[in-house]
Amino acid sequence: MKRLINDGYDVVEEMLEGYEAANKNYVKIDMENRVVVSKMMSEEPRVRVIVGGGSGHEPMFLGYVGKDFADAAVVGNVNTSPAPDACYEAVKAVDSGKGCLYLYGNYAGDVMNFDMGAEMALEEDGIRVETVTTTDDVFSAKEKKDRRGVAGDLPVFKVAGSAAAKGYDLDQVKAVTEKANDNTYSLGVALSSSTLPVTGEAIFEMDEGDMEIGMGIHGEPGIERRKVEKADKIIDEMLTYILEDSKITSGDEVYVLVNGLGALPVMDQYVCYRRVDQILKENGIQVHRTDVGNFATSMDMVGMSVTLVKLDEEIKELLDAPCDTPYYKL
Amino acid sequence: MKRLINDGYDVVEEMLEGYEAANKNYVKIDMENRVVVSKMMSEEPRVRVIVGGGSGHEPMFLGYVGKDFADAAVVGNVNTSPAPDACYEAVKAVDSGKGCLYLYGNYAGDVMNFDMGAEMALEEDGIRVETVTTTDDVFSAKEKKDRRGVAGDLPVFKVAGSAAAKGYDLDQVKAVTEKANDNTYSLGVALSSSTLPVTGEAIFEMDEGDMEIGMGIHGEPGIERRKVEKADKIIDEMLTYILEDSKITSGDEVYVLVNGLGALPVMDQYVCYRRVDQILKENGIQVHRTDVGNFATSMDMVGMSVTLVKLDEEIKELLDAPCDTPYYKL
Repeated sequence: MKRLINDGYDVVEEMLEGYEAANKNYVKIDMENRVVVSKMMSEEPRVRVIVGGGSGHEPMFLGYVGKDFADAAVVGNVNTSPAPDACYEAVKAVDSGKGCLYLYGNYAGDVMNFDMGAEMALEEDGIRVETVTTTDDVFSAKEKKDRRGVAGDLPVFKVAGSAAAKGYDLDQVKAVTEKANDNTYSLGVALSSSTLPVTGEAIFEMDEGDMEIGMGIHGEPGIERRKVEKADKIIDEMLTYILEDSKITSGDEVYVLVNGLGALPVMDQYVCYRRVDQILKENGIQVHRTDVGNFATSMDMVGMSVTLVKLDEEIKELLDAPCDTPYYKL
Repeated sequence: MKRLINDGYDVVEEMLEGYEAANKNYVKIDMENRVVVSKMMSEEPRVRVIVGGGSGHEPMFLGYVGKDFADAAVVGNVNTSPAPDACYEAVKAVDSGKGCLYLYGNYAGDVMNFDMGAEMALEEDGIRVETVTTTDDVFSAKEKKDRRGVAGDLPVFKVAGSAAAKGYDLDQVKAVTEKANDNTYSLGVALSSSTLPVTGEAIFEMDEGDMEIGMGIHGEPGIERRKVEKADKIIDEMLTYILEDSKITSGDEVYVLVNGLGALPVMDQYVCYRRVDQILKENGIQVHRTDVGNFATSMDMVGMSVTLVKLDEEIKELLDAPCDTPYYKL
């Protein structure tokens, strides 16, 4: 057991208690529903951005609730969608008359429960809630719309938060967020499982020294399992997939996210980014801005992902707009 | 091997290449000397703050080079002090006529090499360089001045960077930085070694399920090795040591840093902070501000540390002053 917790069944509640105490200037938490609410929402009525999903990906999702990014996060159990009631309560907690946008990674449980939350908000309170699911994981399905959401959540959510902060209406926020998602492509590689708090055991077996390109953040199967190779070779293969699939090509401009999955040293993340940057340059693709770090983790999984967002002027402006949250500040 | 690198001997150079490419708005890197230099230094002459030490603690040290924090970082090999020449080159790269302050954790190799760098700067160029070493690791020695520096580097460096930005002269920057260090107390717990890039092996042996309170970030021995306990029990023991040693007591105000050592989930860090916050409240100690995350790591070591900084008005103002670096923004 390589975790520092108390009872594994209490881990989400205790994390939230710690989170609220540490970030009291940014958020208050409705502990009954596990809804993290910004204390920094604009006083003017705005579209509110509500993110969420299972726990175990911290600082995703709650770490991005603050000023001009997400207004609330709905927090599920570890690797488990939040309940419909909680999704609904989040709307009631933040709506200012302009409607809300639900934003989360495309997983069946989340889709079902957030959709029920949106229905309740409309039927009970007449609040309009729209949804964009992130679908950035290149290897998870052939059709873009069927793909899972992984670290691409970060830039897609950021675009939505900035658009809402600028006063876009709900249809406009939804449209630009969909455009950002359409332009966002990720692929990961994992070298280990994460450790489940309740059992203290790995979620799935993986031999020391093995790796799997394309593995999902909950251990969804990737391309194939094989021995770990040198970073440059792995990045070459990952970028080949991403560039071929995304059609991002010479003359395009991109935002790049190298995301650590929890237990990969920042040192290694930069060794990986070095090769990403070389490949993009070789292909005539211009890098506008880069983030490297642990933004969307799978607890203590060893691994990383690369995300490219193809930019246009609108997405670039929204991605770069100021924001202030505990884990993302611009 | 749970690392994503190329040749282990190239890891620092490749990390720096990746770092410069990703953070080109913040820094330029003298690759020959491995000196990371801010592109955001004040145009007015100011005392310059130079930090550094061995690699493997990222984002410490280079991650805090930017605006109004550190002006340069000198980067050694993994767990190895930078060379004297590099320490000297850092001074030449940033000095603006007001002198420089070297800041690093108190380790014999670093002390020797930075001292030689300071001598060269004085003899060759007449530049005055003063030094403050951080000595926050409660368990590492009886006398405060003999202790090692661990995550307390972050707040101590921040105080120095803010003081320099406000125009304090070299004696004043040094004095307030020494005061901050005198008020800074840390204690860590480790559940595993980190993995050395060159060998792919752990630095030291540690059985799965064991822990060691007081272990240093390079594996220096702690209090005793025993089976992992519940987080609350570990934090209770750690805080007992810190509060007894620091004499921080009812009525005092503190800054708190819960620092992940590399592979401990953020989730667990908040479970730990929850208990820290409870204990401080029970003791009548007021928490002014808290940071939770991976600020000073030991690559992929599983573990965390707690740092308390006892505040007065001056330290509080400097700790809270604005800054902009890739890994710390206020």
